[in-house]
Amino acid sequence: MKHDLEHTIALLTRTPAALKALLRGLPELWTHRTEGENSWSVFEVVGHLIHGERTDWIPRSRMVLQFGESKAFEPFDRLGHVREIEGKSLDDLLDEFARIRSDNLEQLRRFNLQESDLARRGVHPAFGAVTLSELLATWAAHDLSHLHQITRVMAHQYREAVGPWSEYLGVLQCSGHSS
Amino acid sequence: MKHDLEHTIALLTRTPAALKALLRGLPELWTHRTEGENSWSVFEVVGHLIHGERTDWIPRSRMVLQFGESKAFEPFDRLGHVREIEGKSLDDLLDEFARIRSDNLEQLRRFNLQESDLARRGVHPAFGAVTLSELLATWAAHDLSHLHQITRVMAHQYREAVGPWSEYLGVLQCSGHSS
Repeated sequence: MKHDLEHTIALLTRTPAALKALLRGLPELWTHRTEGENSWSVFEVVGHLIHGERTDWIPRSRMVLQFGESKAFEPFDRLGHVREIEGKSLDDLLDEFARIRSDNLEQLRRFNLQESDLARRGVHPAFGAVTLSELLATWAAHDLSHLHQITRVMAHQYREAVGPWSEYLGVLQCSGHSS
Repeated sequence: MKHDLEHTIALLTRTPAALKALLRGLPELWTHRTEGENSWSVFEVVGHLIHGERTDWIPRSRMVLQFGESKAFEPFDRLGHVREIEGKSLDDLLDEFARIRSDNLEQLRRFNLQESDLARRGVHPAFGAVTLSELLATWAAHDLSHLHQITRVMAHQYREAVGPWSEYLGVLQCSGHSS
Protein backbone atom coordinates (compact mmCIF):
# COMPACT_ATOMS: atom_id res chain seq x y z
CA MET A 1 0.00 0.00 0.00
CA LYS A 2 1.51 3.29 -1.10
CA HIS A 3 1.23 6.36 1.06
CA ASP A 4 -1.42 8.79 -0.14
CA LEU A 5 -1.33 12.30 1.32
CA GLU A 6 -5.07 12.86 0.91
CA HIS A 7 -5.81 9.62 2.78
CA THR A 8 -3.44 10.68 5.54
CA ILE A 9 -5.09 14.09 5.85
CA ALA A 10 -8.57 12.50 5.84
CA LEU A 11 -7.62 10.46 8.90
CA LEU A 12 -5.68 13.20 10.72
CA THR A 13 -8.68 15.51 10.33
CA ARG A 14 -11.04 13.07 12.06
CA THR A 15 -9.06 11.94 15.13
CA PRO A 16 -9.80 14.93 17.42
CA ALA A 17 -13.58 14.67 16.89
CA ALA A 18 -13.46 10.90 17.38
CA LEU A 19 -11.63 11.33 20.69
CA LYS A 20 -14.09 13.99 21.82
CA ALA A 21 -17.07 11.82 20.92
CA LEU A 22 -15.62 8.84 22.79
CA LEU A 23 -14.16 10.58 25.86
CA ARG A 24 -15.84 13.86 26.70
CA GLY A 25 -17.83 13.58 29.92
CA LEU A 26 -16.90 9.95 30.58
CA PRO A 27 -16.48 8.98 34.24
CA GLU A 28 -12.83 9.13 35.35
CA LEU A 29 -12.90 5.37 35.88
CA TRP A 30 -12.45 5.14 32.12
CA THR A 31 -10.11 8.05 31.54
CA HIS A 32 -7.80 8.46 34.55
CA ARG A 33 -6.82 4.89 35.39
CA THR A 34 -3.89 3.04 33.90
CA GLU A 35 -2.97 -0.57 33.12
CA GLY A 36 -0.71 -0.61 36.18
CA GLU A 37 2.62 0.87 37.20
CA ASN A 38 4.54 2.71 34.50
CA SER A 39 1.62 2.73 32.10
CA TRP A 40 -0.44 5.64 30.85
CA SER A 41 -4.03 6.66 31.47
CA VAL A 42 -6.20 7.82 28.56
CA PHE A 43 -5.70 11.34 29.91
CA GLU A 44 -1.92 10.99 29.58
CA VAL A 45 -2.22 9.55 26.07
CA VAL A 46 -4.14 12.64 24.93
CA GLY A 47 -1.37 14.77 26.46
CA HIS A 48 1.18 12.76 24.46
CA LEU A 49 -0.78 13.39 21.25
CA ILE A 50 -0.68 17.15 21.92
CA HIS A 51 3.05 17.00 22.61
CA GLY A 52 3.55 15.24 19.26
CA GLU A 53 1.65 18.02 17.49
CA ARG A 54 3.91 20.58 19.12
CA THR A 55 7.29 18.97 18.64
CA ASP A 56 7.16 16.09 16.19
CA TRP A 57 5.23 15.95 12.92
CA ILE A 58 5.24 19.48 11.56
CA PRO A 59 8.60 20.54 13.03
CA ARG A 60 10.21 17.40 11.57
CA SER A 61 8.50 17.92 8.20
CA ARG A 62 9.89 21.42 8.16
CA MET A 63 13.36 20.05 8.90
CA VAL A 64 13.16 17.65 5.95
CA LEU A 65 12.13 20.50 3.67
CA GLN A 66 14.75 22.94 4.98
CA PHE A 67 17.74 20.77 5.83
CA GLY A 68 17.23 17.44 4.07
CA GLU A 69 19.84 14.95 5.22
CA SER A 70 22.23 17.57 6.56
CA LYS A 71 20.71 17.73 10.05
CA ALA A 72 19.08 15.00 12.21
CA PHE A 73 15.70 15.49 13.92
CA GLU A 74 15.64 16.29 17.62
CA PRO A 75 14.91 13.08 19.57
CA PHE A 76 11.24 12.97 20.63
CA ASP A 77 10.73 13.38 24.37
CA ARG A 78 8.46 10.52 25.40
CA LEU A 79 7.81 12.23 28.74
CA GLY A 80 6.99 15.58 27.12
CA HIS A 81 3.30 15.07 27.88
CA VAL A 82 3.93 15.60 31.59
CA ARG A 83 4.07 19.36 31.13
CA GLU A 84 1.08 19.26 28.76
CA ILE A 85 -1.30 17.72 31.28
CA GLU A 86 -0.28 19.57 34.45
CA GLY A 87 -3.31 21.31 35.96
CA LYS A 88 -5.53 20.48 32.98
CA SER A 89 -8.81 18.62 32.68
CA LEU A 90 -9.42 16.03 29.99
CA ASP A 91 -11.84 18.48 28.33
CA ASP A 92 -9.03 21.06 28.21
CA LEU A 93 -6.76 18.53 26.52
CA LEU A 94 -9.37 17.44 23.99
CA ASP A 95 -9.98 21.06 23.01
CA GLU A 96 -6.26 21.79 22.82
CA PHE A 97 -5.62 18.72 20.69
CA ALA A 98 -8.37 19.74 18.24
CA ARG A 99 -7.00 23.27 18.00
CA ILE A 100 -3.35 22.37 17.48
CA ARG A 101 -4.18 19.54 15.03
CA SER A 102 -6.27 21.95 12.98
CA ASP A 103 -3.43 24.51 12.94
CA ASN A 104 -0.96 21.82 11.91
CA LEU A 105 -3.14 20.58 9.06
CA GLU A 106 -3.39 24.17 7.85
CA GLN A 107 0.40 24.36 7.98
CA LEU A 108 0.68 21.07 6.10
CA ARG A 109 -1.56 22.44 3.33
CA ARG A 110 0.58 25.56 3.11
CA PHE A 111 3.62 23.37 2.40
CA ASN A 112 1.78 22.53 -0.85
CA LEU A 113 3.67 19.26 -1.09
CA GLN A 114 4.34 17.68 -4.47
CA GLU A 115 5.26 14.05 -5.15
CA SER A 116 8.91 15.03 -5.38
CA ASP A 117 8.74 16.64 -1.92
CA LEU A 118 7.28 13.47 -0.41
CA ALA A 119 10.33 11.55 -1.61
CA ARG A 120 12.72 13.96 0.12
CA ARG A 121 14.78 12.56 2.97
CA GLY A 122 15.57 13.64 6.48
CA VAL A 123 17.58 11.95 9.22
CA HIS A 124 15.93 10.22 12.15
CA PRO A 125 18.18 10.04 15.23
CA ALA A 126 17.73 6.25 15.50
CA PHE A 127 16.78 5.03 12.00
CA GLY A 128 18.89 7.25 9.80
CA ALA A 129 17.40 8.27 6.45
CA VAL A 130 13.59 8.46 6.29
CA THR A 131 11.35 10.07 3.68
CA LEU A 132 8.83 12.83 4.25
CA SER A 133 6.22 10.39 2.96
CA GLU A 134 7.13 7.89 5.73
CA LEU A 135 7.01 10.65 8.35
CA LEU A 136 3.51 11.76 7.29
CA ALA A 137 2.19 8.18 7.04
CA THR A 138 3.52 7.64 10.57
CA TRP A 139 1.65 10.71 11.81
CA ALA A 140 -1.63 9.00 10.79
CA ALA A 141 -0.60 5.54 12.01
CA HIS A 142 0.51 7.08 15.33
CA ASP A 143 -3.06 8.38 15.85
CA LEU A 144 -4.34 4.85 15.24
CA SER A 145 -1.73 3.34 17.55
CA HIS A 146 -2.81 5.57 20.42
CA LEU A 147 -6.52 5.00 19.74
CA HIS A 148 -5.63 1.32 19.91
CA GLN A 149 -3.89 1.93 23.24
CA ILE A 150 -6.81 4.00 24.57
CA THR A 151 -9.31 1.22 23.91
CA ARG A 152 -6.97 -1.26 25.60
CA VAL A 153 -6.46 0.91 28.71
CA MET A 154 -10.22 1.38 28.99
CA ALA A 155 -11.06 -2.29 28.49
CA HIS A 156 -8.50 -3.21 31.16
CA GLN A 157 -10.71 -1.47 33.74
CA TYR A 158 -13.41 -4.11 33.08
CA ARG A 159 -11.06 -7.10 33.00
CA GLU A 160 -12.64 -8.64 36.10
CA ALA A 161 -16.15 -7.32 35.51
CA VAL A 162 -16.66 -9.30 32.29
CA GLY A 163 -16.13 -12.64 34.07
CA PRO A 164 -15.62 -15.61 31.71
CA TRP A 165 -16.05 -13.46 28.58
CA SER A 166 -12.50 -12.16 29.07
CA GLU A 167 -11.21 -15.03 26.93
CA TYR A 168 -13.38 -13.97 23.96
CA LEU A 169 -12.40 -10.29 24.02
CA GLY A 170 -9.37 -9.67 21.82
CA VAL A 171 -8.56 -6.35 23.46
CA LEU A 172 -7.99 -8.15 26.77
CA GLN A 173 -5.41 -10.46 25.16
CA CYS A 174 -3.41 -7.50 23.80
CA SER A 175 -0.17 -7.26 25.71
CA GLY A 176 0.43 -3.57 25.05
CA HIS A 177 3.09 -3.26 22.44
CA SER A 178 3.73 0.45 22.81
CA SER A 179 4.71 2.34 25.91
CA MET B 1 -12.78 -3.20 39.49
CA LYS B 2 -16.49 -3.76 40.10
CA HIS B 3 -18.97 -3.38 37.29
CA ASP B 4 -20.92 -0.13 37.47
CA LEU B 5 -24.04 0.13 35.33
CA GLU B 6 -23.80 3.91 34.95
CA HIS B 7 -20.21 3.61 33.71
CA THR B 8 -21.28 0.94 31.25
CA ILE B 9 -24.12 3.09 29.93
CA ALA B 10 -21.80 6.13 29.67
CA LEU B 11 -19.54 4.18 27.33
CA LEU B 12 -22.28 2.45 25.34
CA THR B 13 -23.89 5.83 24.70
CA ARG B 14 -20.72 7.26 23.15
CA THR B 15 -19.55 4.50 20.79
CA PRO B 16 -21.84 5.28 17.82
CA ALA B 17 -20.82 8.95 17.73
CA ALA B 18 -17.15 8.04 18.08
CA LEU B 19 -17.40 5.65 15.12
CA LYS B 20 -19.22 8.28 13.05
CA ALA B 21 -16.61 10.91 13.84
CA LEU B 22 -13.77 8.56 12.94
CA LEU B 23 -15.22 6.84 9.88
CA ARG B 24 -17.86 8.89 8.08
CA GLY B 25 -16.58 10.04 4.69
CA LEU B 26 -13.19 8.32 5.01
CA PRO B 27 -11.72 6.93 1.77
CA GLU B 28 -12.50 3.23 1.30
CA LEU B 29 -8.79 2.48 1.60
CA TRP B 30 -9.33 2.81 5.34
CA THR B 31 -12.75 1.23 5.67
CA HIS B 32 -13.14 -1.54 3.09
CA ARG B 33 -9.80 -3.33 3.21
CA THR B 34 -8.94 -6.17 5.56
CA GLU B 35 -5.83 -7.55 7.24
CA GLY B 36 -5.78 -10.38 4.71
CA GLU B 37 -7.76 -13.50 3.97
CA ASN B 38 -10.45 -14.42 6.49
CA SER B 39 -10.21 -11.11 8.30
CA TRP B 40 -12.74 -8.32 8.52
CA SER B 41 -12.79 -4.83 7.09
CA VAL B 42 -13.92 -1.90 9.24
CA PHE B 43 -17.18 -2.01 7.28
CA GLU B 44 -17.75 -5.63 8.34
CA VAL B 45 -16.90 -4.85 11.97
CA VAL B 46 -19.63 -2.19 12.07
CA GLY B 47 -22.05 -4.77 10.61
CA HIS B 48 -21.04 -7.16 13.41
CA LEU B 49 -21.76 -4.47 16.03
CA ILE B 50 -25.26 -4.00 14.59
CA HIS B 51 -25.85 -7.75 14.62
CA GLY B 52 -24.84 -7.84 18.30
CA GLU B 53 -27.39 -5.13 19.07
CA ARG B 54 -30.09 -7.15 17.35
CA THR B 55 -29.39 -10.60 18.74
CA ASP B 56 -27.02 -10.50 21.70
CA TRP B 57 -27.02 -7.98 24.52
CA ILE B 58 -30.64 -7.01 25.08
CA PRO B 59 -32.16 -10.35 24.03
CA ARG B 60 -29.77 -12.17 26.39
CA SER B 61 -30.47 -9.71 29.22
CA ARG B 62 -34.16 -10.38 28.74
CA MET B 63 -33.50 -14.12 28.94
CA VAL B 64 -31.67 -13.74 32.25
CA LEU B 65 -34.56 -11.73 33.65
CA GLN B 66 -37.28 -14.06 32.32
CA PHE B 67 -35.74 -17.52 32.50
CA GLY B 68 -32.71 -17.27 34.80
CA GLU B 69 -30.72 -20.49 34.69
CA SER B 70 -33.56 -22.58 33.27
CA LYS B 71 -32.76 -21.85 29.60
CA ALA B 72 -29.40 -21.27 27.84
CA PHE B 73 -28.80 -18.30 25.50
CA GLU B 74 -28.93 -18.90 21.75
CA PRO B 75 -25.34 -19.21 20.45
CA PHE B 76 -24.20 -15.94 18.82
CA ASP B 77 -23.85 -16.18 15.04
CA ARG B 78 -20.39 -14.77 14.27
CA LEU B 79 -21.32 -14.54 10.59
CA GLY B 80 -24.60 -12.77 11.27
CA HIS B 81 -23.14 -9.49 10.01
CA VAL B 82 -23.16 -10.80 6.43
CA ARG B 83 -26.88 -10.10 6.10
CA GLU B 84 -26.50 -6.75 7.88
CA ILE B 85 -24.06 -5.31 5.36
CA GLU B 86 -25.52 -6.62 2.10
CA GLY B 87 -26.21 -3.73 -0.26
CA LYS B 88 -25.44 -1.12 2.41
CA SER B 89 -22.96 1.74 2.52
CA LEU B 90 -20.80 2.43 5.56
CA ASP B 91 -22.88 5.55 6.22
CA ASP B 92 -26.02 3.38 6.26
CA LEU B 93 -24.40 1.08 8.82
CA LEU B 94 -23.20 3.94 11.04
CA ASP B 95 -26.72 5.40 11.10
CA GLU B 96 -28.28 2.02 11.76
CA PHE B 97 -25.85 1.28 14.59
CA ALA B 98 -26.62 4.64 16.24
CA ARG B 99 -30.37 4.03 15.95
CA ILE B 100 -30.43 0.49 17.28
CA ARG B 101 -27.96 1.27 20.10
CA SER B 102 -30.14 4.17 21.20
CA ASP B 103 -33.24 1.93 21.17
CA ASN B 104 -31.40 -0.72 23.16
CA LEU B 105 -30.21 1.76 25.80
CA GLU B 106 -33.80 2.93 26.15
CA GLN B 107 -34.84 -0.69 26.64
CA LEU B 108 -32.07 -1.17 29.20
CA ARG B 109 -33.35 1.82 31.17
CA ARG B 110 -36.88 0.41 31.07
CA PHE B 111 -35.58 -2.76 32.76
CA ASN B 112 -34.93 -0.45 35.75
CA LEU B 113 -32.28 -2.85 37.03
CA GLN B 114 -31.51 -3.04 40.73
CA GLU B 115 -28.35 -4.46 42.32
CA SER B 116 -30.17 -7.72 42.98
CA ASP B 117 -31.07 -8.01 39.26
CA LEU B 118 -27.43 -7.54 38.24
CA ALA B 119 -26.51 -10.56 40.35
CA ARG B 120 -29.07 -12.78 38.56
CA ARG B 121 -27.67 -15.61 36.48
CA GLY B 122 -28.30 -16.93 33.01
CA VAL B 123 -26.66 -19.76 31.10
CA HIS B 124 -24.11 -19.14 28.37
CA PRO B 125 -23.93 -22.01 25.85
CA ALA B 126 -20.13 -22.34 26.32
CA PHE B 127 -19.34 -20.90 29.77
CA GLY B 128 -22.33 -22.04 31.79
CA ALA B 129 -23.57 -19.68 34.53
CA VAL B 130 -22.91 -15.97 33.97
CA THR B 131 -24.38 -12.95 35.75
CA LEU B 132 -26.36 -10.14 34.17
CA SER B 133 -23.63 -7.83 35.47
CA GLU B 134 -20.98 -9.76 33.51
CA LEU B 135 -23.13 -9.68 30.38
CA LEU B 136 -23.59 -5.90 30.55
CA ALA B 137 -19.90 -5.24 31.31
CA THR B 138 -19.07 -7.38 28.28
CA TRP B 139 -21.38 -5.28 26.10
CA ALA B 140 -19.17 -2.24 26.87
CA ALA B 141 -15.87 -4.14 26.62
CA HIS B 142 -17.02 -5.63 23.30
CA ASP B 143 -17.37 -2.08 21.89
CA LEU B 144 -13.81 -1.39 23.02
CA SER B 145 -12.54 -4.66 21.57
CA HIS B 146 -13.94 -3.82 18.16
CA LEU B 147 -12.68 -0.23 18.28
CA HIS B 148 -9.31 -1.81 19.06
CA GLN B 149 -9.71 -4.09 16.03
CA ILE B 150 -10.82 -1.17 13.80
CA THR B 151 -7.69 0.84 14.60
CA ARG B 152 -5.56 -2.23 13.91
CA VAL B 153 -7.21 -2.98 10.55
CA MET B 154 -6.77 0.65 9.52
CA ALA B 155 -3.14 0.87 10.66
CA HIS B 156 -2.38 -2.33 8.73
CA GLN B 157 -3.10 -0.44 5.49
CA TYR B 158 -0.07 1.79 6.22
CA ARG B 159 2.26 -1.01 7.37
CA GLU B 160 4.62 -0.45 4.43
CA ALA B 161 4.05 3.28 4.11
CA VAL B 162 5.50 4.09 7.55
CA GLY B 163 8.89 2.59 6.65
CA PRO B 164 11.21 2.04 9.64
CA TRP B 165 8.70 3.53 12.11
CA SER B 166 6.74 0.27 11.98
CA GLU B 167 8.83 -1.06 14.86
CA TYR B 168 7.79 1.87 17.12
CA LEU B 169 4.06 1.60 16.42
CA GLY B 170 2.40 -0.70 18.94
CA VAL B 171 -0.68 -1.20 16.80
CA LEU B 172 1.46 -2.81 14.10
CA GLN B 173 2.82 -5.37 16.58
CA CYS B 174 -0.71 -6.42 17.61
CA SER B 175 -1.36 -9.89 16.27
CA GLY B 176 -5.15 -9.61 16.25
CA HIS B 177 -6.47 -11.59 19.13
CA SER B 178 -10.10 -11.62 18.09
CA SER B 179 -11.59 -12.85 14.87
